[in-house]
Amino acid sequence: MRAVDVIINKRDQLELSSEEIHFFVQGLTEGTIPDYQVAAWAMAVLLNGMTDRETTDLTLAMAQSGDTLDLSPVVPFTVDKHSTGGVGDKTSLTVAPIVAACGLPVGKMSGRGLGFSGGTLDKIQSIPGYRTNLTPQEFMDQLSDIGIVLTGQSANLAPADGILYALRDVTGTVQSLPLIASSIMSKKLAAGADAILLDVKTGVGAFMQTLQEARVLAEIMTAIGHNADRQVVCLLSDMNQPLGSQVGNALELKEAVEALRGDAPADYREHCLTVASHMLVLGKQAQTLDQARSMAQDAINSARAYDKFRQLVDAQGGDIRYVDDLSLLPTAQFVEPLEAPRTGYLQTIHAREVGETAVDLGAGRASKSDSIDPAVGITILHKVGDHVTQGEPLCWIHANDQEKLEAAKKRLLSAHHIVDEEVPPLPLFYDIIQ
Amino acid sequence: MRAVDVIINKRDQLELSSEEIHFFVQGLTEGTIPDYQVAAWAMAVLLNGMTDRETTDLTLAMAQSGDTLDLSPVVPFTVDKHSTGGVGDKTSLTVAPIVAACGLPVGKMSGRGLGFSGGTLDKIQSIPGYRTNLTPQEFMDQLSDIGIVLTGQSANLAPADGILYALRDVTGTVQSLPLIASSIMSKKLAAGADAILLDVKTGVGAFMQTLQEARVLAEIMTAIGHNADRQVVCLLSDMNQPLGSQVGNALELKEAVEALRGDAPADYREHCLTVASHMLVLGKQAQTLDQARSMAQDAINSARAYDKFRQLVDAQGGDIRYVDDLSLLPTAQFVEPLEAPRTGYLQTIHAREVGETAVDLGAGRASKSDSIDPAVGITILHKVGDHVTQGEPLCWIHANDQEKLEAAKKRLLSAHHIVDEEVPPLPLFYDIIQ
Repeated sequence: MRAVDVIINKRDQLELSSEEIHFFVQGLTEGTIPDYQVAAWAMAVLLNGMTDRETTDLTLAMAQSGDTLDLSPVVPFTVDKHSTGGVGDKTSLTVAPIVAACGLPVGKMSGRGLGFSGGTLDKIQSIPGYRTNLTPQEFMDQLSDIGIVLTGQSANLAPADGILYALRDVTGTVQSLPLIASSIMSKKLAAGADAILLDVKTGVGAFMQTLQEARVLAEIMTAIGHNADRQVVCLLSDMNQPLGSQVGNALELKEAVEALRGDAPADYREHCLTVASHMLVLGKQAQTLDQARSMAQDAINSARAYDKFRQLVDAQGGDIRYVDDLSLLPTAQFVEPLEAPRTGYLQTIHAREVGETAVDLGAGRASKSDSIDPAVGITILHKVGDHVTQGEPLCWIHANDQEKLEAAKKRLLSAHHIVDEEVPPLPLFYDIIQ
Repeated sequence: MRAVDVIINKRDQLELSSEEIHFFVQGLTEGTIPDYQVAAWAMAVLLNGMTDRETTDLTLAMAQSGDTLDLSPVVPFTVDKHSTGGVGDKTSLTVAPIVAACGLPVGKMSGRGLGFSGGTLDKIQSIPGYRTNLTPQEFMDQLSDIGIVLTGQSANLAPADGILYALRDVTGTVQSLPLIASSIMSKKLAAGADAILLDVKTGVGAFMQTLQEARVLAEIMTAIGHNADRQVVCLLSDMNQPLGSQVGNALELKEAVEALRGDAPADYREHCLTVASHMLVLGKQAQTLDQARSMAQDAINSARAYDKFRQLVDAQGGDIRYVDDLSLLPTAQFVEPLEAPRTGYLQTIHAREVGETAVDLGAGRASKSDSIDPAVGITILHKVGDHVTQGEPLCWIHANDQEKLEAAKKRLLSAHHIVDEEVPPLPLFYDIIQ
């Protein structure tokens, strides 16, 4: 078999065989297929697409390209969660302790933020001392001991995905639904997930800008899951405006912890309860979503979820005083309001603009090697549909640099649109695919 | 400007600007754009196409990526010729001496054969001593002295094309009409052509298998020429059956020289006279095609064309005795007929099968480093439409290996189809585009 023939077949819109896909993934992992052939193939895949069968084969081949975890000695049934990323999405930080407190162990490997979308590890590392580089043995021991782990990738999982993603990033081949779907799902399968709760965000602040695109991605990932004998539930959720109130690392951690104490903005609470409920049903801890929701609510009310989070931070070396007294978390030098320029109804809070303003303030990375400032960010005070009065604060800007503060004000002002007519609120969820 | 944005624009079917194309060609020439980005871009071009304006910009950028020749001190007006290649196409060897004998200097840089399509340099090097590595100074001096040169590429012409072609070959991106057209035209422009006669072959033995594809390629190259202020005439000629009778290096050289002496198969004579006539009109040696044709015929009849070929061989160090006595050229150990399996009309002589059989016999290269056997090949005795009788020879096979001879017989037998009904002869030319 020759790599160039696999490229030509995809170029000519043929369906690649399982053998061709495994040959290609093995070759790119071992370096016997050079990156220029991988790049040409990725562009052909982007432009000509893949069937669900091809995408499943690609996912399985990438999942098998490195280590595969088996958590069954510790966890009888593993439920993993993945969000496609958005602005203000700190859901894992709240949901993992909730479901762990309900008896479903969660061993989660998360990533760093890149671009306008934040990363769970960056947020939790606002707590001094918190380690995200657990060894595989530490991971297993902690999961067995306290039923919750939140760390970086601790094994050589799906190296083919890492190689392919680096190449896609510089060859204009990121925006391919089969390649996005197989990238996400290969890591989840390699990490040993028996069931997967997917949260596919859609809107101006998401990678999938349209509901149609998000739906197709969800359908592809669901099909991969079923073809690979995994249970998959896929939520389609809104990312036109930020989720919750806080955008920025320490600010989001604070919001996530407050939610564990029962104090959360309505949209964020609802989002977390929905995600947690589906995970509990997938993990066979509850028969129905209603039952699961009661369990999750009870874990919050009883403070068991909050205690589980404290256990997590303590186990991974974080300074627990920062959880108990959130005012110890880093704060910004300048905290100033952005005032409503007129009276009316909020029609738009452009999530991507808000996310990119946070990056400009120092909360995120433009490139992988950049460092981040945990203190800066934005506190959103209103949601789309709210009535606002001229002069009242629309949001608070947390900055450590006067110039960046002024630039952020301008950018955020144009991210908010206020109109005379009433505006309906945005839905939290559009659909569930399973 | 970033290479990835140029890739993304072409991926998204946008027309690239002149600046984008020059940036990309300069980057790939200098190595600042890595080959994986070039490969992804080439696949996007193949699948999404290019406008004539983009293709012209690409051609000019590639032509300017290295040395550009200026023949004007020696030749007031340079007419170049290019054939897209086929089986039995030895036209340059006959036409160059004819038009040079008519007063139009021809300084031609040719290539080697690859795959089923032979190369002019391989054919003329059947003459011992013939040099194809003239220096630029030798090239200019000889063109000035005797008005004819036939050599390999003697300068760093269009290096971007060389880099891009090598990459296309291994990434399934050869078959792109804008990339093929710009590859051909960039070398002609860099070599200093004021006018270009293009012979685009179409049929089973050509790279353009359908007339429609060949016509589009011809139209693109004509548009490039006009956009670059060059005169272009493009012949669309048949390559379903081999051109002339001989296929193989020494065999084709023999046929080309015999044609200069006035002894040629009808199709090959007609093809050469047509090509020569167009070149003479482009080169302002004749007012009309009829006048040009008379000049060309007269150059043959008067032996001036043959003398010009002798001058060429002598000037480039070839042993002139091999021209005067063609029986000195290398001959094969086995020369055996393939007999007609039945009586009827020849419907097909599959040019590609004939060309690949010649390669199997040793006449061509499967890869660039292979050596070739000048003696072997095939002599076609009939043309499509001829009536043949069972047992009479369809062709002669020239082989230096008994096993290869037997394999060639089998392959050639299936390349000929004989039917009961009369079959019209194939046209020589389908159209002229200018």
